Parts: sequence; structure tokens; C-alpha cells
Amino acid sequence: MRHPDEDEEDIRMAQSQAPEGAEPEKPPLRVGMVGYAFMGAAHSQGWRTAGRVFDLPLTPVLAAICGRDATAARAAADRHGWATVETDWRALVARDDIDLVDICTPGDSHAEIALAALAAGKHVLCEKPLANTVEEAEAMTRAAEAAYRSGRVAMVGFNYRRVPATALARRMVAEGRIGRLRHVRVAYLQDWLVDPQFPLTWRLRKEQAGSGSLGDLGAHIVDLAQYLAGERLAGVSALTETFVRERPLPAGAVRGLSAVSAHGTGQVTVDDAALFTGRFTSGALASFEATRYATGRKNALRIELNGERGSLAFDLERLNELSYHDGTEPGERAGFRRILVTEPDHPYLDAWWPPGHGLGYEHTFVHQARDLVHAVAEGRRPEPSFADGLQVQRVLAAVEESAEKNSVYTPIAA
Amino acid sequence: MRHPDEDEEDIRMAQSQAPEGAEPEKPPLRVGMVGYAFMGAAHSQGWRTAGRVFDLPLTPVLAAICGRDATAARAAADRHGWATVETDWRALVARDDIDLVDICTPGDSHAEIALAALAAGKHVLCEKPLANTVEEAEAMTRAAEAAYRSGRVAMVGFNYRRVPATALARRMVAEGRIGRLRHVRVAYLQDWLVDPQFPLTWRLRKEQAGSGSLGDLGAHIVDLAQYLAGERLAGVSALTETFVRERPLPAGAVRGLSAVSAHGTGQVTVDDAALFTGRFTSGALASFEATRYATGRKNALRIELNGERGSLAFDLERLNELSYHDGTEPGERAGFRRILVTEPDHPYLDAWWPPGHGLGYEHTFVHQARDLVHAVAEGRRPEPSFADGLQVQRVLAAVEESAEKNSVYTPIAA
Amino acid sequence: MRHPDEDEEDIRMAQSQAPEGAEPEKPPLRVGMVGYAFMGAAHSQGWRTAGRVFDLPLTPVLAAICGRDATAARAAADRHGWATVETDWRALVARDDIDLVDICTPGDSHAEIALAALAAGKHVLCEKPLANTVEEAEAMTRAAEAAYRSGRVAMVGFNYRRVPATALARRMVAEGRIGRLRHVRVAYLQDWLVDPQFPLTWRLRKEQAGSGSLGDLGAHIVDLAQYLAGERLAGVSALTETFVRERPLPAGAVRGLSAVSAHGTGQVTVDDAALFTGRFTSGALASFEATRYATGRKNALRIELNGERGSLAFDLERLNELSYHDGTEPGERAGFRRILVTEPDHPYLDAWWPPGHGLGYEHTFVHQARDLVHAVAEGRRPEPSFADGLQVQRVLAAVEESAEKNSVYTPIAA
Amino acid sequence: MRHPDEDEEDIRMAQSQAPEGAEPEKPPLRVGMVGYAFMGAAHSQGWRTAGRVFDLPLTPVLAAICGRDATAARAAADRHGWATVETDWRALVARDDIDLVDICTPGDSHAEIALAALAAGKHVLCEKPLANTVEEAEAMTRAAEAAYRSGRVAMVGFNYRRVPATALARRMVAEGRIGRLRHVRVAYLQDWLVDPQFPLTWRLRKEQAGSGSLGDLGAHIVDLAQYLAGERLAGVSALTETFVRERPLPAGAVRGLSAVSAHGTGQVTVDDAALFTGRFTSGALASFEATRYATGRKNALRIELNGERGSLAFDLERLNELSYHDGTEPGERAGFRRILVTEPDHPYLDAWWPPGHGLGYEHTFVHQARDLVHAVAEGRRPEPSFADGLQVQRVLAAVEESAEKNSVYTPIAA
Repeated sequence: MRHPDEDEEDIRMAQSQAPEGAEPEKPPLRVGMVGYAFMGAAHSQGWRTAGRVFDLPLTPVLAAICGRDATAARAAADRHGWATVETDWRALVARDDIDLVDICTPGDSHAEIALAALAAGKHVLCEKPLANTVEEAEAMTRAAEAAYRSGRVAMVGFNYRRVPATALARRMVAEGRIGRLRHVRVAYLQDWLVDPQFPLTWRLRKEQAGSGSLGDLGAHIVDLAQYLAGERLAGVSALTETFVRERPLPAGAVRGLSAVSAHGTGQVTVDDAALFTGRFTSGALASFEATRYATGRKNALRIELNGERGSLAFDLERLNELSYHDGTEPGERAGFRRILVTEPDHPYLDAWWPPGHGLGYEHTFVHQARDLVHAVAEGRRPEPSFADGLQVQRVLAAVEESAEKNSVYTPIAA
Repeated sequence: MRHPDEDEEDIRMAQSQAPEGAEPEKPPLRVGMVGYAFMGAAHSQGWRTAGRVFDLPLTPVLAAICGRDATAARAAADRHGWATVETDWRALVARDDIDLVDICTPGDSHAEIALAALAAGKHVLCEKPLANTVEEAEAMTRAAEAAYRSGRVAMVGFNYRRVPATALARRMVAEGRIGRLRHVRVAYLQDWLVDPQFPLTWRLRKEQAGSGSLGDLGAHIVDLAQYLAGERLAGVSALTETFVRERPLPAGAVRGLSAVSAHGTGQVTVDDAALFTGRFTSGALASFEATRYATGRKNALRIELNGERGSLAFDLERLNELSYHDGTEPGERAGFRRILVTEPDHPYLDAWWPPGHGLGYEHTFVHQARDLVHAVAEGRRPEPSFADGLQVQRVLAAVEESAEKNSVYTPIAA
Repeated sequence: MRHPDEDEEDIRMAQSQAPEGAEPEKPPLRVGMVGYAFMGAAHSQGWRTAGRVFDLPLTPVLAAICGRDATAARAAADRHGWATVETDWRALVARDDIDLVDICTPGDSHAEIALAALAAGKHVLCEKPLANTVEEAEAMTRAAEAAYRSGRVAMVGFNYRRVPATALARRMVAEGRIGRLRHVRVAYLQDWLVDPQFPLTWRLRKEQAGSGSLGDLGAHIVDLAQYLAGERLAGVSALTETFVRERPLPAGAVRGLSAVSAHGTGQVTVDDAALFTGRFTSGALASFEATRYATGRKNALRIELNGERGSLAFDLERLNELSYHDGTEPGERAGFRRILVTEPDHPYLDAWWPPGHGLGYEHTFVHQARDLVHAVAEGRRPEPSFADGLQVQRVLAAVEESAEKNSVYTPIAA
Repeated sequence: MRHPDEDEEDIRMAQSQAPEGAEPEKPPLRVGMVGYAFMGAAHSQGWRTAGRVFDLPLTPVLAAICGRDATAARAAADRHGWATVETDWRALVARDDIDLVDICTPGDSHAEIALAALAAGKHVLCEKPLANTVEEAEAMTRAAEAAYRSGRVAMVGFNYRRVPATALARRMVAEGRIGRLRHVRVAYLQDWLVDPQFPLTWRLRKEQAGSGSLGDLGAHIVDLAQYLAGERLAGVSALTETFVRERPLPAGAVRGLSAVSAHGTGQVTVDDAALFTGRFTSGALASFEATRYATGRKNALRIELNGERGSLAFDLERLNELSYHDGTEPGERAGFRRILVTEPDHPYLDAWWPPGHGLGYEHTFVHQARDLVHAVAEGRRPEPSFADGLQVQRVLAAVEESAEKNSVYTPIAA
């Protein structure tokens, strides 16, 4: 294993920590989280770890977790290390001893919880997509703006901005390393719906999930593409498809599904796949694909940016790597290089392990917690803001509108 | 180096060749080629080599090469081994001692030469795209059908069907290995126009080239996608773009360019990039991208097919490999495998080198020559036929129509 | 993002946790860790996280951290979440409220601490290499055996056995998937000593580190190769080299270095690189390389195993992947497949994220903590045991002996 | 497809060819080839193609092919385009109308044929390994030196120096791009002997093949490593192994095998695999592995060179690519880059296809023919010379000696 000199490290560590002893304790940031399934576990890991790895101005405290089922919520609290349990998010939001509300529920409850939390003077972290409709997202954005003027911050959880490799890509684009942008090529490929017998979960029902691949995967890639490009989409042309329109109901889970057939199946009411092309405001072209039917692709969020001076490419299935082609080099020695994004001068990496010792998926949530804590402490508007989430929502709405209107090119509302 | 037993090989070779001595000589197939630049060199290599590697029913003879400039044509004949030279394609077509006319000129002359050659009773091989317009392609297809009834064959040069890896992919799709098709993802990425100072060659002028990336690269990927899928596109929605609209004229080459500016520049009148999405007749979705602005991508023709039972992926920059995911395997051991397409039971490979000793780009032309010789000798309709070339032309026309009509979904004419 | 059905997950989680409420609390496993630099941070992460992710029979408690410098140790305790601080490891070992001593110091103190801890009735986890000499390792192994008869377990920290991909490889070898072994090819490549101005840290001094690349990197690959092969090395032939024999002293760190020159430089007294070949007991051949001079390779621990029925390959720089070639498949479709080791039926993965959401380096320490907790609770001899660590030490000693004796083939002592 | 401007190309071609018409015809280089199996086919392709692609000072003529079996030799002549046939190599060597003898037979006849050809005043190209013993190679080298003084050249067929990517690597090493060399890591992995039922071909018999993997694969990698490093090996330490010692006889091929068992099997009398480590004269370390038992590796000749300023890596299974790490770049953007070695300023590439249109295995023989023609025309000593072949032979002899002497480090005779 590669180590820096441990003596040196000890000295450095001692020095960087020494003032703390003398100073007053860091104030806490007391987090209350709503939801405790997949995203809840990931956010828990983020809150628990961020202060152990980074020097933070506030100490995150896992104060309360909230879920409707008291037993399950209690179990999640024990598992993930949350101090207390609530079964009604309204009670959580009303508590005086909570500073930040972290919303990890399905999209249909985001707006209601976020608005209440902001109204109660809490900082808010809201999972993506921000909401199920543009209207909800607009209301949330207005509330976030108002709250910001009162010193409260609101962030949307596009965690893939916080992979060190994507953060490095953003930095390189901002530095001008790829020059004038020509093409952005993005796909988010998964395969968990390939089997027609996979059951009809809430993610396949419009009333809860809002949309299918589009809102789940498409939201991520629209945000990431615009973030890396440093500019917004101007319009899109789209196709969507639902390949398998009827699926078996999950065992014992017939709560509130409208179109239940005699055979224990129900209608899939969201898209299985969404393809769209578009133009950025600068004139660069973009293509997007979001699907859950790409057999063998498990979590292949891929993005490539081609500019006049160079190109960048990333694949989430190899998240510690960034491909970079420097177009200004002599052709004889040019080529896409694989940057192993584990060096101390790479984003977030000075706090982690020696070069070559990679990070994983969950670290995006550690970095998200880190960045949000800084924003709270410094009163800065966090990125991505609710306004960013709203803008992504508008792109998704334009995609749906284009798909309904025979793929006609549809401008994004400003 | 890995060798089969050479004694065994000698015996096999002797046996396979022995009958020849007793039999009458193989009849010749006398080829006359029009054009002698890049494609001419590649086709020459194909004709010269095919009979040295494969057991062919006819012996290809490089009988005549044709170019307007006598000196240059003579030089090309010497260089590539053609027996005689013509400076007028009409003279070539009129010769009695030519059996097959191989058309390697820019697209604007394909129709005229092909129609004359077919009328003169020649077999025809025509470079892609088949023609610059659907109307020309229709006329060529009608003529090819008529000629076929008289025993003449006509083929269009979509050589990328003849990479062993793509031919293997086709075989695997036909065997049902990927099952019901869901997604086809295709791109053809080059970067030779990134520099705005690259000169205005004939390929950037609509009157000669017909279109830009679309006809040059797009034609290849539309054909390959439909060939591998085993089905046709039903409709498309498209965006096209010309990023750099004015370019310097090539040195000393101001022949017949209309819009020449005072500064020695001229208008680019074709597309730089074309993006389109579409639906196959089965309902599978497809996305296509053709561009000459993908910095660092030199000849990246990439195609991925996702089906209910598996997936296949190919990249022309690694043309000896095919990626295959078998979706029926247990997840624990499943993954995309890199098939090194160099085994003796892979398409075309029994005639070549031992496993792992790869082929190159030019071998597609050797294989094309081989397949065409067989079609001629056996009176079989070659694939891809002019009708296939016409259908690709119709897809390209629908792409252009959609791009002009605000990307609206445009059905492909049947 | 791909999610399992969250409702289902909630139910599962609630069920799996429900009994806990009724049952008595899980007993704690109180850990005392000696050392707090790089390895200390990694082990802290492991102890802190294991019980949050896995269902463990005991709850790890970060009870005490020990370091000579009180201020630095206090800072480390605060940073990593350890409850108390000791400045003398003897005091730590003597404490009644410590169940397990985790030794993260340089190799020259392993034996003394481990022997004391075992004598004091503690379980022990000892970082690799087990010791700086075979004699020390033998004493430690005897003590571990004695302790085991009294219900105490001792494990050596070869954490790379606990990458899911290597654990999967072991499982596949044990299942016979690669058949009779022919070749094992292993390298551990880093590059942090390429610069001759990199300072003379303790890792480059024989009296503290024992050896250089050999003990640091070589120990890992010898253990991993034998573990994956499921058999031991019989003998080795070795070359070692120190490319840069004098290096600048680290700033302000001239404590106890013997050969300090006038110019503030000191002698490198360990190997920079070690190459060796060997034979396994089955007759399979092996090659090993450990170096800190492989420019551009950051943490490239690579291992490939070739057997009569198949092959496996792994690279730590892509730790979520395992390459597998199934030699029993028809050649037409065979190829090395990239298994993304993130499926729920892969080792350790049922407790983590959905497929395609990869893990990182530090998770090996989480898994190590998990496995050790189980061993403690169940009174099982943990793997790798001190005896395993001793055997690795004997291989390293044979390497050194061979290198000193002109590379002559040197059997491994049994 | 990417094209240069075809008009421009036509002009260039016309100009480059124009003088030819005026000048006297290029003189021929009349080649007589001994042997016509795998290597014979590859060399034929080389001789036939070189003058069609490159501007050569002499025109290669496929004058005569020689094989003991008249029918088979006749068939090979027809297949590959050789003008005449001989059945006795002595007759070939005696012919006045042959300028160069190309020896493609097994190693046991190289010396006799080469000595006779040189004595007869022919230029010679001899397949590798140069001979089966050092003594033979010494005699051949003396004869080559004497012939050179009379204007005859002799070259040994280490064709892997002539992959554009390896030639580029050599150029970059010579330019100092990787700086002082530290490590060379080489393997040549094939798998065609994995099946114990693969028959006992001549390549597995010491009296014909000289050695097994060592002479066949090891000779290639020793030559390539020394060529790329630009220096020679000083000594080696080796292990060899024959995993399967008895194999079935090939059908109907029981000519002259001594140890034929009752069951139609015979003894394998060569090595199956050879592993060796070594030191270069500069002190750099090297490791080598040659095997025919690396299941799934078909033709994986891999070499990596690590130097103080950078690294290079190559794999023959991806022969159009070279990996390069520039160690002088800032770590933030450094990484191994994949150079697609298809640019016009790459070695040999100005005569071939546009960027990204790769070459294959057989092109190494085209390049070999090209380089040899130049050497003949210019009276230059070709590389690799017989002296180079002899030196490789000495390395192989040292490997065998070390393997016999318990792997002891064995210096290479100067």
C-alpha cells in the first residue's frame, strides 16, 4: 500500500487539529431526514462520514429520522445511527432541534415537505427530481429564494456532480481546456426492467414517480450535462416509449393502484425509455438517452463532451476515471488519456486515500453533505439550487411535450 | 507466433488445391474501376488480394482503371497494378473485355455511370452512398432489377458489413442470441473538420457530395444498424448543423465553386453533423449521430444493440473485437465479454491468420470482393443490393426532411 | 438511479430488524487501535461503518485510540470518532474495557504489541506484513494458537482478500471454474519513488520497515496469489534492486537515522523493487513484481490466473470489476468478460447498493471488520490467520535469500 | 469514411509518380522463398503488397517458391502468385535469376540454407529464431558479415519491430520521452496447448523446433524488449516447464519421431512455458513470460516500459494502439493515453489509410519487405541483422542454462 510519510502526516494532522482544542467546539448541524429506504441509507452514510473525513465548519448530527411505519423507522434509526424517530414529517419539521430537513421520499411528496420545512425556517436538501411537476418546482424555488433572504439554504440532490471525476471535468471545461463546445453525448443505461415479469413498483406509476426513466435517469443526465457544459439547453426533440405496458403487481402491495387487472397485473403508466436530441444555447448539439432496458448495462451514466480544443468522457461504471483528449497536442502523441481521479489535487481527494485507492458511489453523498455544510455555514447559495432543479424540470417537461407532439423541436421555457 | 501444424497445413493446402490442376482454369472476372483516389486504392487492394486468400470461383483481374487525368491515372495503374488505363468512363463501359464496373467516384456521378454500365451488360459495384438523390437511386435500383433478370448483379459498397466482427454480430442476432430488440445506439465520430482552417474540399459542397456527415458517415451507420437489427427503420426525427459555414479554398482548386468570397474562402453547403432518433418497425428505438467534430475520435463507428436476451457492441477503432453480453447467464458471472474475432469459425477468418492475429480496415474490401465474386459466379443477388442502397437513401431523405421541418417525426417512404 | 422497490425494501428491513427490539441488545466489541495515520484512518472507517451496513452479532465500539503524541492522538480521536485516548500502547493493552487490539503501526512494533495483547487476553487484528522477521512472526503465530485455545482470535490485515471482486475470484476458483492451474501472474505497481528527490521516509529504512516494496507490496500479492490459487508457493527465484540509494531527509525529521550525510541526505536501506518467479505446490508457475517505480501506475495490483478450464484477471485500479474467460465455451463466442462485481449475489454486496453502484478502497476495511466480528462472535479462526501471515513472511524471506544468492531457486520453509 | 481531399490527393499522386514515366524502370528484386505454410503465406502477402503501397527503389518480384512436395508447392505458387516452383532449396539458391532468398522453414534448416544462399551471393531474409543453436547463429552471423562486405545484406524476421505502434514506441524512447529506464515487463501469451489432446506437432519436438515457447515466443519478446529499450540484457534467471509431457501424434504423421508410445502418443521434448527475470546493462529490471497455456489469451504480446519521465505499453491484440504516460505532466491531468497509431506522421502510416482506419498483423510483413528493399537498394546493414539474431540466441541460451542450473543468475555472453 502506498503511504505518505506517516510521521509527516501525524505532524500535519496534529497541527491542523491543534487549534480546535483551544477554540470553542464546532456548532452542530442537526439533520432530520424523511424517508429511509435506498436514498435514506445513502444520505445517512453521507451525514455520518462527512465530518470524519473533511474539516467542516459545522458538525453534522443525525438527529431524527422520519417514516410512517414506526417499527421500520426505528429499525432504520438503529441501523443508520439516527438519534430519534418521527412517524409524521410534519412533527419533524416542527421540531426546534432540527436545523436541516433532508427529503428522501418519492417525488410526489417533495413539494409539500420542502415548502413546510422552508416555512419552518429549516435548511433543506431535497432528492432529485425536485418535484413531479413544473408548477410544484416553481413554488419550491420561490420559497427557496424567500428563505435564502432569511439565511436558509436549499439544495437539490444531483449527487453525480460530486463524483471527483465529474467535478474535475467541470473544472477543466471552465478552464477552457476543451474550448468551444460542439457536441455533448449523454446516456444513462440500466437494465432492471428487461424482464417483463419484474413487478410493478411505485417507480412505474405516474402518480407517485411523476415519470419513468425520464425523471429518474433523465433528470440526472440533463443536470449533469448542463453543469459540465456550463450552459443550458435551448430546446429538445424527443421520443419516449413504454415497451412493457402491463406488469405483475408486487406481492401483497395492492394499495391504491387504479388499473389492476384480474390476473394480478397493473398498468405501467410511465415511460420505459426516453431519447432526445437538443441544442445548447451556444449552438452545440446534444443527444440524451435514458433507459432501463439496456441489457448488461447496470449503471452506465456516460457523458462525452467534444470541443474545439479537446474532449472529455466519463462513465459512472468506472467512476474513478476521466478520459481526456487534449486536441492541442501534436497528433503523433495525442490520444484519450485515462486520468485516475485519485490525486490529492483532484476535487475532494485531499481528504481521502493515496493515489490509486478509489472511491465508490456512496462518496458522492459524503461530498454532497460536505458542500452543503459549507454553504449553510457560509450563507452561500448552494449548487445545485432549487432554481437549478426547476430548470431541469422544465427540460423534462419540454421532452414530454415534444414526445407528445410527434417529436417536434420544443424550446425550453426560460 | 502461434502456428497450426505446418505439415498438416501443407497437406490440407495441397489437397484443396490439387483438383485445380486437373480442372480447367478458373475463368477470370475482368474488373474496370472508375476513380483512383482513396477508395480506388482500397478497392485495388481488395481485388488484388481476394483471390490470393480465398478459394474463389472466378479469378479477379485488374483489367482497367479510369480517370480523367491521363498522367495521374497512369500513375495509379502502375501503383495499384491495373493493366490498362482509360480517361473516359464511357470508353471503359464500352469495352468488351470488362465484366464488372467498380464505381469509386464522388456521389454525383454514381447514377450516370452505373446506369450506363448496367445497360452495357456489366456487373456493377458502386461505392456508397448509392446516389445523391432518392430519384437517382430509384432509377439505379430499377436498372439493377432489370439487369438481374439478364444475369447481371449490382452491389453497393457498404463495406462495414464485412468486418468479421460485424458479420459475427449479424449472425448472432439472426440466431436469436439477443432476443427481442429494444435499443440500437449508433454513432460515427470523426474529427477532421474541427479546425476551422481545414479547406473547403469537394466533400463540403452539396453539388458534388450530396450531403456532408449525413451521406458520408450517416449512410454507413443507417445501413449497418438495419443490417445488424435485421429490420428497417420506420421513421426518424432529426437535427442537423453546420458549425463552420465558411472555409478557405484548397490551394489552386477554384474550379466551379459558386460562392467564392473575396478572401479565398467559400461556403460550406453541407451538414457538419447529423443527429437523429428513430423507431424500427418492431418498435425498438434507435439513436444515430454522425459528425466530423468529435475531437479525438478518428473513425469511431460504434453500434450497440440491446435485446431482451442480450446485447452486442462494436467499435470500428477496435475492429477485431465484438462485445457480447449474454443476458441469460446467472448475474453472478455475467458481463460484457470481449470476443477477439479472429477464430477460424468466425466469418471470413478460416482463410486468414491464426487466432489473435488481427485484420485491418482494408480487409473489408477483400471480403467485399470475395462476396461479390461469389454472387457473380452463382448468379445470386448480392447484399447489399441497389434496393438496399435506395432504402438507405430514403432514410437519409427522411432525416433531411425532418431536420427541415423542425425535427418532426418523419416516416420512411416504403 | 436504480432502486429496488422501496416499499419492499422497507418491509424487508423492518422484518430483519424487528426481532432486535424484542431481543436483548447486541453485545459490544470494544476496539482499541494503536496508530492513527493512513492505516488508522482506514481502520476507523471500517469499524465505524461495518455495523451500519451489515447485520453483525456484536456492535463494534471505537473505544480507544493510542499514539505517542498526546495532541495528535487526541486530534485523531476527535476526527475519527474514538472515545478515549492513550499515549502508551501498554496502557491500552492493560485496559479491562478493551476486547480487541487493532495494530496499525509500522512493522517493527507488531510483534511486541501483538504478543502483549494476546497475553492480556485480547483479540488482535494486526496490519500486514505480520512482522519484520520470520522469527517474530513465528512467536506471534505460537501466541495466536495458544490464545485461540483460550477463545481469542488473531487476524492479519490482508485487506485485499476482501475486495468483492477478489472474493468472487476465490469462490470461482474453489468451484473449479478455471480448472487445473497453470499460471499465476501478479504485479503490484506504484510510482511514488520515481522522483529521486522524494524524501527518505521511515518506509525506506530497514530498521523500521523491515523491507521496501517487498514487505509493503510483495506481502499483499504473495498472500493474494496463494489465497486465490488455493495453494502455496513451493519455491522462488528473485531479483531485488534499489535504484536510488540516497535520498534527502524529510524536513525536520532527523530522528535516529544512522547514515546521515553532510548534505541532509540518508541511505535508502530497503529494496525499491522486487521481481520473483516461483512454483506452486501443484506445479503451476508464478511471476511476481513489486515496485514503486512504475511511472503512471498508482495502485495497480494486478493478478491473472490461467487454468485448464478458464482464466481470471483483476486490477485494483478497477476494483469493481473481475475479468473472466470461460474456456469451456465455444470459441466463436468466448472472450474475457468484464463482470461488474456489484450484484446482490456477489460477496459482501447484498448489504450495499444496487447493481452498478461501485464500492471503493476503504470498503475492504469495512468487510475486514465485518468478517472479524463474525469470527470473534462465533469463535472461528479468522482468515487470514497469523499462521497465514507467517507463511507469507517465509515466502518473503525466501525471496530475500534467493536475491542474495544470485537468484538461485530457494524452497519455502514449511 | 474520412477522406483527404481527393483532388489534392490526385495531384499529389500524379506529381509523385510523374518522374517515373521519364526515368528508367525501377530494377526488380527477384525473391525466392523457401517454405510455404503459415509464414510463407504471410511473407507472400508482404512481397506482393509492399510495392503497391510504398514508393520503393526496387520492385519486388515473386520469382520462385520452394517446397519438397511438388504438388503442394505448385498449389502454393498458384495461390500466392509465385512465378516458378522449386522442390530443392539447393536448386533455388543456385539460380541466377534470384536476388534474395527468403527462408520460412522450421529453425533446424535455417543455418544450412542461409549459409548456402549467402555463399551464392544472395541477399537473405531469415525467419526467427535465427537458428536452433548459438553455434549455428554464430556461423550465420560471420557469413552475413562477410557477405555484407560484398554488398549482400542479411536480415532476421523479427516482424514485431514493424508494427507502427512498436516503431513509434522505439522512436519515443530514442527521443528520451520516458527517460532513464527502470522496468521492462514483457509477456507473450497464447493458449493453443491448453488442451492436452492437442497433437504433437513439429513445434513440440526439440530436434526440429530447437525449443518451445522460448524459441517461438520468447525470441520475439527478447528482441522486441531490447529493441525498444535501446539496450541489451546483461543476465537472466529462468524457470521453464513442460506441463503436458505426452501428447497424441498427429493423424498419419509418424515420420521420424523417436519416442512413440504404444498408444499413438509421443514425448513433448520442448518447454511449454518459460519465465525469466533479468537486468539490462543500464541496471533496469526486466521480466519475461512466454507461454502457450494462458487460457483465453490468443496472441497477447504485451510490453510495458517504465522510465523516470514516462511509460509506454503495447499489446499485440490491440496492435493499432500505444499507451503512453507522460510523467512530466501535472498529476491533475496525467494518465495513460491511448494513441491510435494511425496518423500520417506515425511510422509507415503516410502510405496507408486515413486516421482511425487500422492495420492488421500481416502489415508487419509488408513493412518488413519495404525496409529490406530499402536496405538492399542502399547497401545499408538491415535491422535486425544476423548479429542481432545471434545476440537474441545468446539470451535464449542463457535462459536455458539458468533453467538447468536451478535458476541461478546467468550472464549473457557478449
